[in-house]
Amino acid sequence: VSGVFVIGVGMTRFTRHEESSIALGEQAVAAAIDDAGIETADMDALYAGHVHGGAVAGERVGAATGLAGIPTLNLENACASGTTAIVEATHAIRAGRYDAVVACGFEKMSSRPGMIAPSEGDYEGALGLVFPAWHAVRARMYMDAYGLTRDQLSRVAVKNRSNGALNPLAHFHEEVTLADVAESRPVATPLRLFDCCPKSDGAAAVVLGSRRFLDATRRRHGRAITVAGVGLSSGRADGFYEPLFEDITHRAAQEAYDDAGIKPSDVDFAEVHDCFTIAEGLRVEALGLAEPGTYFRELEANGRWMRDGACPVNASGGLLAKGHPVGATGVAQVCELVTQMRGVAGERQLAKTDVGVAHTRGGSVPGTEGGSCGVVVCTGD
Amino acid sequence: VSGVFVIGVGMTRFTRHEESSIALGEQAVAAAIDDAGIETADMDALYAGHVHGGAVAGERVGAATGLAGIPTLNLENACASGTTAIVEATHAIRAGRYDAVVACGFEKMSSRPGMIAPSEGDYEGALGLVFPAWHAVRARMYMDAYGLTRDQLSRVAVKNRSNGALNPLAHFHEEVTLADVAESRPVATPLRLFDCCPKSDGAAAVVLGSRRFLDATRRRHGRAITVAGVGLSSGRADGFYEPLFEDITHRAAQEAYDDAGIKPSDVDFAEVHDCFTIAEGLRVEALGLAEPGTYFRELEANGRWMRDGACPVNASGGLLAKGHPVGATGVAQVCELVTQMRGVAGERQLAKTDVGVAHTRGGSVPGTEGGSCGVVVCTGD
Repeated sequence: VSGVFVIGVGMTRFTRHEESSIALGEQAVAAAIDDAGIETADMDALYAGHVHGGAVAGERVGAATGLAGIPTLNLENACASGTTAIVEATHAIRAGRYDAVVACGFEKMSSRPGMIAPSEGDYEGALGLVFPAWHAVRARMYMDAYGLTRDQLSRVAVKNRSNGALNPLAHFHEEVTLADVAESRPVATPLRLFDCCPKSDGAAAVVLGSRRFLDATRRRHGRAITVAGVGLSSGRADGFYEPLFEDITHRAAQEAYDDAGIKPSDVDFAEVHDCFTIAEGLRVEALGLAEPGTYFRELEANGRWMRDGACPVNASGGLLAKGHPVGATGVAQVCELVTQMRGVAGERQLAKTDVGVAHTRGGSVPGTEGGSCGVVVCTGD
Repeated sequence: VSGVFVIGVGMTRFTRHEESSIALGEQAVAAAIDDAGIETADMDALYAGHVHGGAVAGERVGAATGLAGIPTLNLENACASGTTAIVEATHAIRAGRYDAVVACGFEKMSSRPGMIAPSEGDYEGALGLVFPAWHAVRARMYMDAYGLTRDQLSRVAVKNRSNGALNPLAHFHEEVTLADVAESRPVATPLRLFDCCPKSDGAAAVVLGSRRFLDATRRRHGRAITVAGVGLSSGRADGFYEPLFEDITHRAAQEAYDDAGIKPSDVDFAEVHDCFTIAEGLRVEALGLAEPGTYFRELEANGRWMRDGACPVNASGGLLAKGHPVGATGVAQVCELVTQMRGVAGERQLAKTDVGVAHTRGGSVPGTEGGSCGVVVCTGD
């Protein structure tokens, strides 16, 4: 298996944009190609992750960025769409199909009526178990099982808002206090407004290449950053999972760790799908970076997941502060890993960035744990 | 590169269905797994092609067919979505990622308001150059360039309706005459109603496996059928193509032929994206099976593309008679190749079926030749 490297990254700010998702995708792809210092003629394929971009949206982004003609995929896996694009592009390069692929994600959420309406046939959602309600149930169960407090939960929002304040591309730049979170508008008890990620518009892109391609581009960013491991899973049916341990995340992570030849204890920092405060803890636990039931307690006790902690989580601000343009999210996570690994993250720069993990999980499928989960492990030389 | 084999096929009838696209997908996947004679536990991944199925539709089909938990992709490439699923599944098996993959396509067209409305930003469509208009322009140009007659064009519809009448799963079972076509309602001059494919609901699925998997399933259908070559392309920008020669089809076909190690003259029969009568000829020519400008003349002169001709095209009835549930179309084409190669096509059985080609092409991207094109070459041992 030959190595796959991140040659270039680019993204728009995540916020409310006037432009279409296609126009946002164009900006991110152009930025990633520019960052890589390559010609569009060097690109062999385009992998686009999006949910609402419309038919052949990837081809439309490609046509606007000088990539018309190359094989193009549109990959949808709800919130994991962007990660799915990276996973598939990585496998294609490894298999020798392509030397260089643009993987991108884009989404326009602000023009959509709502993001929590159940799909046709989603009887769980129709009965009220839409995402905020489901995460509220899990938060309540976690409180019962492990003594999670309101303050402990709030600390996730405080941390991620603090990180987002240092990220020029984040949706929210305002810090919040424990009191702000606890007093924000109730959404689904015990979750409040600041426990929930916003609807954002935005796009992100990465240029991935083989070792041959990396060498040809002369490593203009110094450190070579490898996509060392990838994993993709879907939710299993009832009976194979339980609300306080994310089997779907655990299995995707295990695949990615095995693929990279690492253990969870090797991970220096992570970007994790914190669509809600409670979700961040459950997912870091399922990623094996914390023991079940310990995430929020550790955050309070020793700040383990803070920027200056032992294993920073969501230094970018995460979904809670950076925002969540669904298809773009997983690609933006990898952009953050690379920005940190290059040492160019500015005020939010982390100290140790040899091994980073990105995790997204999305979609609901009645009668199963959920839609899709993707995990990407990046390592720096 | 290890071989990839079609182990099982299944499809619904293409017609107006009451069920959702998810329910149709379930029926096709269950049928393909049953046809393969395998257990769902043997399946390593699910690749779903669809345009309008909604978020994580593939995972929903998987959950309903006992496939919950395995990596699942939703692939969209307009009319080439199903072919894209087969292309990607083939590459994944070849790369050793999976031993067995279900590739499926499903679509519910009847509940959609229209299929020819231009996308946001499609200035060509907004100016009136939607699909029927574009194909009408090409038909007129073909008439000017090669002397194409109304009767020659009509013969494509007559042939495909005749084939569809022998296919129990086709949308239309009624034959039509040259006069019926010429007198049908004008749509976009010179194209008339019977020059155009219908809107259909339906689904199709194939089980693809490695040689190891083929051997484990004991070749229950006798002949081993190989996915010998695959190709995927997107449309190039203005200046690289011209209306009477489909560059996008030519390039995807060349990739698939090279991949399979065959020449166009080796092809015994083909399923081709005949969304309009004129399109069938243009595509067979771009596939290299006919010289430019000769398709319709040969059909009239010697019936070369008829069921009993030298190179039958769309023995299934094609999009014109079998129907066109967008995401399902490319998968259904491969189902037809396999049905013919197994020798179980009943009244429409072809004589020589050693090498078959399936071709789909779909989507419009302003300023380029078009969205996406996929070609699959199957060979029988």
